[in-house]
Amino acid sequence: MSLGSFLDEAKDLVNAELDRVLPSPDQEPKRLHEAMRYAIFAGGKRLRPAIAIAACRAVGGEDREAFSAACALEMLHTYSLIHDDLPAIDDDDLRRGRPTCHKAYGDATAILAGDALQTEAFRVLAEETARPEAIVALVRELANASGTHGMVGGEIADIEAEGAAPDLDRVMWIHERKTAALFRASAVMGGIAGGADEATCRALAEYGTSLGLAFQVVDDILDETEDAETLGKSPGKDRAAGKMTTPAAIGLERSRTLARDHAGSARKALEGVSDASVLAGLVDLAVERSS
Amino acid sequence: MSLGSFLDEAKDLVNAELDRVLPSPDQEPKRLHEAMRYAIFAGGKRLRPAIAIAACRAVGGEDREAFSAACALEMLHTYSLIHDDLPAIDDDDLRRGRPTCHKAYGDATAILAGDALQTEAFRVLAEETARPEAIVALVRELANASGTHGMVGGEIADIEAEGAAPDLDRVMWIHERKTAALFRASAVMGGIAGGADEATCRALAEYGTSLGLAFQVVDDILDETEDAETLGKSPGKDRAAGKMTTPAAIGLERSRTLARDHAGSARKALEGVSDASVLAGLVDLAVERSS
Repeated sequence: MSLGSFLDEAKDLVNAELDRVLPSPDQEPKRLHEAMRYAIFAGGKRLRPAIAIAACRAVGGEDREAFSAACALEMLHTYSLIHDDLPAIDDDDLRRGRPTCHKAYGDATAILAGDALQTEAFRVLAEETARPEAIVALVRELANASGTHGMVGGEIADIEAEGAAPDLDRVMWIHERKTAALFRASAVMGGIAGGADEATCRALAEYGTSLGLAFQVVDDILDETEDAETLGKSPGKDRAAGKMTTPAAIGLERSRTLARDHAGSARKALEGVSDASVLAGLVDLAVERSS
Repeated sequence: MSLGSFLDEAKDLVNAELDRVLPSPDQEPKRLHEAMRYAIFAGGKRLRPAIAIAACRAVGGEDREAFSAACALEMLHTYSLIHDDLPAIDDDDLRRGRPTCHKAYGDATAILAGDALQTEAFRVLAEETARPEAIVALVRELANASGTHGMVGGEIADIEAEGAAPDLDRVMWIHERKTAALFRASAVMGGIAGGADEATCRALAEYGTSLGLAFQVVDDILDETEDAETLGKSPGKDRAAGKMTTPAAIGLERSRTLARDHAGSARKALEGVSDASVLAGLVDLAVERSS
């Protein structure tokens, strides 16, 4: 199966699952459920769910075993986008080519829609996963990846670094938490769902971290080089906001080299995973966006 | 043991546990950890943890079995207060007699501190609870109580009802979700932690819901009748904001009767619980505040 076919299939599977498990817009509170679905079904690539499904397959699991992890990861990611876009944080009007959630539904509803998507992520793990031991491991992995030592920690550091002198170590500290932590969780949670042993989970963790770092460096590059139509969001915002990005710290060319280095580390980590061709393809995809 | 001694003991136990499990303010991101602790250690009554510990004791459990549930409930409650107080929602400057989290740390940090406290709640359940089956049940209970069919659903309905003609059914719909859902979860999670059977958990659920409704009706009454010093937050805000409260719908006297009715239902539910004196005492406490 080609990588494109896999991504299309994974996206369809995850979208159908998200539609099934998310609260219905016909139920009260309707507008909140609408806002949650507006943000979730905005046309994202479903990269984190795809990583989880690919990791689950790589360790011999069935797709359906990874569905709760895949949905939880996408809900967690979407909640972070909604909150990041708020006027009090990044103040972004455009996301995936459409008005951001707070632009469409107002700030109060957007805050609560993000809150509820985080809650749903943990609910789905606990209610849609078969084995109690797997639920415990998945909740732990997701909570650690998304809390103050992971995603939210990276977000606050990103805000606090605005306007400071660019520094590569600090950029990497932020990227590891803000982006790579959830990529790591995507790979590991897919592995856990598929019944991977500890050594394989460690290899998947290394893979996910390196893939996430490559992906975020490329995102930084694209913010400088692409237009709004290609990007689906407002370009040049990072530089305008004085964000501490990789290009700001070391320039575009060295950033491209760095992205390739992280991609190399991700591929190397896959030596510990038996059926890793799709996972390797995701690495190529992450890096090729910037070429 | 008197109720006052129980509450003091429960508060000390929970405060020590919260201090132990919350990320340290000496670790990065320091300011975020400070903001989380500022909000958590603002001097709250720890009523939800106290309910959980009392329910755990009532079914024959040990206090320590209820600690993860108690901490998770307080973190969940505190995150909701931080976000509710934001300028985009209730725009409150004062909470428990001190500046609200966003007044002290800024809106961006307050949003992320609330987000991280929700994450921590689920992390603590998954990492600090002994039995996998109990973790699964606790995560389910907390997620259902705090999502769109629970707390967050009540919050959005509360916002949407602002300025509408007061209506008792709608007020009760909001109170059931905004407040009673987490009281219900407090009682049930304490029961689960202590190893209660299903029938007892159902009785505890009824108890928690009725206690929560009594508590919220009394809160509505106090908002109209108390001054800022007694209340620890800005009084009269509900009426000024056109909030749909019980007194707005049926007046103060009938609201007092309604609070007593809910208290009666809570006491009646305890007939299904063996050692329920402390849980009954909590009902008296909730209602007596308004006399």
